Amino acid sequence: MQKLHIIKIGGNLIDDKKSLKAFLEQFSKIEDAKILIHGGGKLAETLAEKLKITQTMIDGRRITNKKTLKLVTMVYAGRINKNLVAKLQSFNCNAIGFSGADGNMIQAEKRQHPTVDFGFVGDIDEKSINHELIINMINLGLVPVFSAITHDKKGNLFNTNADTIAGTIAQALSKYFDTELLFCFDKNGVLENIEDENSNLKTINKQEFSELKSEGKLHKGILPKLENAFRAKENGVQKVALIKEEKLSDQIKLGNEGTEICL
Amino acid sequence: MQKLHIIKIGGNLIDDKKSLKAFLEQFSKIEDAKILIHGGGKLAETLAEKLKITQTMIDGRRITNKKTLKLVTMVYAGRINKNLVAKLQSFNCNAIGFSGADGNMIQAEKRQHPTVDFGFVGDIDEKSINHELIINMINLGLVPVFSAITHDKKGNLFNTNADTIAGTIAQALSKYFDTELLFCFDKNGVLENIEDENSNLKTINKQEFSELKSEGKLHKGILPKLENAFRAKENGVQKVALIKEEKLSDQIKLGNEGTEICL
Repeated sequence: MQKLHIIKIGGNLIDDKKSLKAFLEQFSKIEDAKILIHGGGKLAETLAEKLKITQTMIDGRRITNKKTLKLVTMVYAGRINKNLVAKLQSFNCNAIGFSGADGNMIQAEKRQHPTVDFGFVGDIDEKSINHELIINMINLGLVPVFSAITHDKKGNLFNTNADTIAGTIAQALSKYFDTELLFCFDKNGVLENIEDENSNLKTINKQEFSELKSEGKLHKGILPKLENAFRAKENGVQKVALIKEEKLSDQIKLGNEGTEICL
Repeated sequence: MQKLHIIKIGGNLIDDKKSLKAFLEQFSKIEDAKILIHGGGKLAETLAEKLKITQTMIDGRRITNKKTLKLVTMVYAGRINKNLVAKLQSFNCNAIGFSGADGNMIQAEKRQHPTVDFGFVGDIDEKSINHELIINMINLGLVPVFSAITHDKKGNLFNTNADTIAGTIAQALSKYFDTELLFCFDKNGVLENIEDENSNLKTINKQEFSELKSEGKLHKGILPKLENAFRAKENGVQKVALIKEEKLSDQIKLGNEGTEICL
């Protein structure tokens, strides 16, 4: 099977112009088929403040109201996505930016919850992914860049977790490609000791994850990444790892950076 | 040759939710290959005011400064483009939204002018259009929806006139398709008497255009449309017309709405 790298980057990197440029240059040099999936960054929050869009919280959970949806559609699918595409194009990487609405590539359902209405939040599963069209894009030599905006094919856009999008696209494409899913962030993988950058576990299995979680040893931000990473691995993604952003090239070459997910 | 309809819509329509919906439903029903190109609307101005982004004018001409570029990228390529795509998808039209940076589809050059620096404004010509990729998208059964944001392949995005984008794409594709270019707006074509909706010229040639222009009989907004329309027609676009938005279906069926451009 042809190799495919699916690479998720987060808001911290997007906010750091210099590191982002270095990362995109590394990404551009990957010779196999590849897909980039990006989260948000602080820009949406900054703009929400300036525009006085109040963040609604219910039971401590963030709600995507109509104004917030409009804002994240502008910021994620517009400014961030198109800037990433333009920067990648400058490195001769034939990037093409998508939201899930484009070509009906990621069709979501409004989140259902017994007590909380999350507003414009969309949930997806493997069937949500239009793998045929994504494969067509790859076969045209294009490099898809996905923002975390999806739709319901009824005219509504949704805010969807970018880690989940990365994991679910990887799942859907792992039937057609030898797929490596990399969650890139600012840590050296899963750290045994959060203060020590060199304490990264080389591998983590589900039991070790449960133990670390119940011992409270994992910092909060890594939990959704790990949950999505394990779901992807359990559902057939050939290789899944959490790595430090600046180690992307080394991981592509040698494959032993950060923390690899095992079953 | 296969038929292709390239349809440009403007800000007035985008700002009018009900008319926009009716228009998109008509557009969805066109059975031939088709492309939609959209302008901005008042949203960018409203947001600029709220965010206190001042509009720079030099010699009475609007300059796209860095903040304005960020804003229009968000609004045009993000919010408006993705909402149009999601609405079209709800009408079973397989829309896919692009800026010129995506797949390097429209590569522009920063506007050169002896005395005025227009800022982030990009000029394009027929060679700017990646017709091969656009044709590939059409052959996949997709309906491209272009916002008026272009790039220079050096990492910079540009604001570009949407009428010009429509005309230039039509020119580039008229070698491969029997192309109809329609500028849709709120008037019944070119009116001899601006007060009378029924005074539309059925056709207009370049000499008539010059005469009307020098007599000051044309309202200002129609000038760039007509200039782009004549340029497209002169450069091989099979059919070019200015029509009223709500007459789209009739034009596709009968071809005699509004004002047709003649050489």
